[in-house]
Amino acid sequence: MKASAKADSTASVTANGMRTCNVALLGFGTVGSSVAKILNERPGTNLRLTHICNRNVARKKVNWLPPDIVWTEKIEDVLSSGADVVVEVMGGLQPTEDWIRWSLEAGKSVVTANKQLISRCGQDLLSLARQHGQEIAFGASVAGGVPVISGLHEGLAGDDLFKICGILNGTCNYILSQIESNGVSFATALREAQKLGFAEADPSEDVDGLDARAKLAILARVGLHCAIEPEATRCRSITPIDSVDFEYAHRLGCTIRQISLAELKGNELFAAVQPALVELTSPLASVEGSQNLVMSTGVYGGETVFGGHGAGGHPTAVAVVSDILAVARSKTTGISSAARPQKSPTVTADFTTKHYLRFIVKDRPGIIANLASILSHGDINIDAVLQKPGCPKSHLPFLITLEECKASRVEEALEQIDRLDFMVQPCLHLPILAGELHAK
Amino acid sequence: MKASAKADSTASVTANGMRTCNVALLGFGTVGSSVAKILNERPGTNLRLTHICNRNVARKKVNWLPPDIVWTEKIEDVLSSGADVVVEVMGGLQPTEDWIRWSLEAGKSVVTANKQLISRCGQDLLSLARQHGQEIAFGASVAGGVPVISGLHEGLAGDDLFKICGILNGTCNYILSQIESNGVSFATALREAQKLGFAEADPSEDVDGLDARAKLAILARVGLHCAIEPEATRCRSITPIDSVDFEYAHRLGCTIRQISLAELKGNELFAAVQPALVELTSPLASVEGSQNLVMSTGVYGGETVFGGHGAGGHPTAVAVVSDILAVARSKTTGISSAARPQKSPTVTADFTTKHYLRFIVKDRPGIIANLASILSHGDINIDAVLQKPGCPKSHLPFLITLEECKASRVEEALEQIDRLDFMVQPCLHLPILAGELHAK
Repeated sequence: MKASAKADSTASVTANGMRTCNVALLGFGTVGSSVAKILNERPGTNLRLTHICNRNVARKKVNWLPPDIVWTEKIEDVLSSGADVVVEVMGGLQPTEDWIRWSLEAGKSVVTANKQLISRCGQDLLSLARQHGQEIAFGASVAGGVPVISGLHEGLAGDDLFKICGILNGTCNYILSQIESNGVSFATALREAQKLGFAEADPSEDVDGLDARAKLAILARVGLHCAIEPEATRCRSITPIDSVDFEYAHRLGCTIRQISLAELKGNELFAAVQPALVELTSPLASVEGSQNLVMSTGVYGGETVFGGHGAGGHPTAVAVVSDILAVARSKTTGISSAARPQKSPTVTADFTTKHYLRFIVKDRPGIIANLASILSHGDINIDAVLQKPGCPKSHLPFLITLEECKASRVEEALEQIDRLDFMVQPCLHLPILAGELHAK
Repeated sequence: MKASAKADSTASVTANGMRTCNVALLGFGTVGSSVAKILNERPGTNLRLTHICNRNVARKKVNWLPPDIVWTEKIEDVLSSGADVVVEVMGGLQPTEDWIRWSLEAGKSVVTANKQLISRCGQDLLSLARQHGQEIAFGASVAGGVPVISGLHEGLAGDDLFKICGILNGTCNYILSQIESNGVSFATALREAQKLGFAEADPSEDVDGLDARAKLAILARVGLHCAIEPEATRCRSITPIDSVDFEYAHRLGCTIRQISLAELKGNELFAAVQPALVELTSPLASVEGSQNLVMSTGVYGGETVFGGHGAGGHPTAVAVVSDILAVARSKTTGISSAARPQKSPTVTADFTTKHYLRFIVKDRPGIIANLASILSHGDINIDAVLQKPGCPKSHLPFLITLEECKASRVEEALEQIDRLDFMVQPCLHLPILAGELHAK
């Protein structure tokens, strides 16, 4: 074990002949206390928790941890200690980034669950770690307890992956599942999620796709070897999704999920986080509540599925402890090293798919003719028109599905369409990801 | 890289600064040629295929590999070469075991896809590898391209796993799926599978569960840290499953799959490979064709799912190449080292579950009373009796489901029942694994 060779290390040898690895914890919230619990309870491990660093640490102290643990508010106490691995589960961008940098510079490896930080400066931190002969692992930063980072990086290292698709945000999945199964509105489902603690008071990070986008950037880097900025990926909110959309989706043999998708084609990376229709027979459709699921597709091995608990203290803590163990064995489950250099593709959201257009109109004769004319001018073929019976004429929902074409063509047509006087609200436009996302 | 330091190594440095790792291939069948194809095609790798060893090698030579590869029939040529890693994809127990031992003794690490060999003497081979400072990796031995070995060993290392459940045999899953969707008999589905190359001329290894049993023993070792002999696990054949069983299963909200299950409770390991009822909403139910799926359950992280192509040249080759890369980085994805010692639990198949009993009887009054009396003497509670209409009285199928009880109690009762004069054939007894195998 690399770290144990350091002069300041207090590493000792356990009964089973393995060197002890000293662990310092930055952050003692839900995940932090779960990490402490696992480190304290799990048998046969060579990991020893030595420091816990948190603001107002006096209020955080618990009586179920060994009395010799140092509780502190000062990062300096950790930096000058014999800790081999610093575990960052405090979140946020600052002072977190500084503390991670200082830890690496102090000759400590780092394990972090911080998706925003890693998606923004993972490559930088990895270089810094290498420079100091340390490692930085971030398996917990995506999909909590689902071991997808190590799966892509190690288990599927022999493949040439070109596509990653998944449900990466449990909050969105919970809200959409609720709208689907209880027929409630988005607002009601969101309130319910907030009441249960599944959604924040400001839910934008989740429902607008920013959270999933950061995770997708990390997966694209680890699995597709593409260095992309999270901001380069188009996000669309799930807020306009209504229970009527699930009725229509079901009639098409589909459901609606927030899908994070990145697909490498030549020098282009097609990437987006958006609500989309997926077939009911796809593994993506059966993800319920706050579960996460990631599907990767490789040239040789085809599709592989990873699923499990995407959030929660204990599942996330499992990912953190797995990373500590890996780092302790002098390994990283992080970004691939020189073996497979990172590509820098052009990022676009201009997927070619079938499309779902849901209109709410003030009914009058000629609407379909009007829409069909604009679509045909855009060289877009209508696949089907569906109208649910029994709706008020002043607020009439109906559906047009389109044959396969580029999203940009549809968006151009919708710019004209949304200005038409019979439109009660802007058209809801979702891609239909059918026939291409099966694990079968 | 450990191997490259050896005196006989011809390791060199590639353009990107990584040392070349020389690979010798034992066996050039479906998997072997896929491994060669990936090694030859994949960009940015430091792996170089140097030797291919196969019987009648002259007939095996292909023109799509570099001309400097040494084709040989003699293992001695490999042992005396500069190969760093020996890849065994020839199968069988002998001479395979000897060749692997000799390779380790010659200072070469080994990657193998051989489930029978690893389930029988994996621990031995691991010790031998350690003794010679080498590694042996076997990620391809279970579930082909599904990265479950590395997932359990690395990605979930931080959890304390106590249960592993999966669909580990694609042939059985294909046959059962065919009976289910086409209403054909077992014999017809088997013939179809044989015609398509999904089943062997002698299908016993697959349909009787021996193949899945070897894989389950490996998973129990890697995931549950239990050293069990494959033979200790009870196997039951899928041969008695009929299309009528799917009709009944569907009426119970279930389907039937060959399920490999190992669950650690105290000092007992409950393990079996058998056809079982699983709920239609379980991820296990949606595994179709020759797909594989493994669910693990941990104390902290709950359920995690790994799915993908369980067989086939390319998916299995991906697992092999991933292992070669891991070994080349001086890592193993194999059995855990001293950190978590192996347990040696008592192995039992005496699961406590609900039960499905399907009878075929010559109908006459008093049958239910007769059966109910025997079951109640065994202290077994009947849950429901179901009878599909429109069947001949001389060959009448009907179903009894039982409330939760130990399998052994049911088996004792069935010994008496199967001797009754109205029984046309022995009762089909399947566990109902409902309500406990959700990834939700």
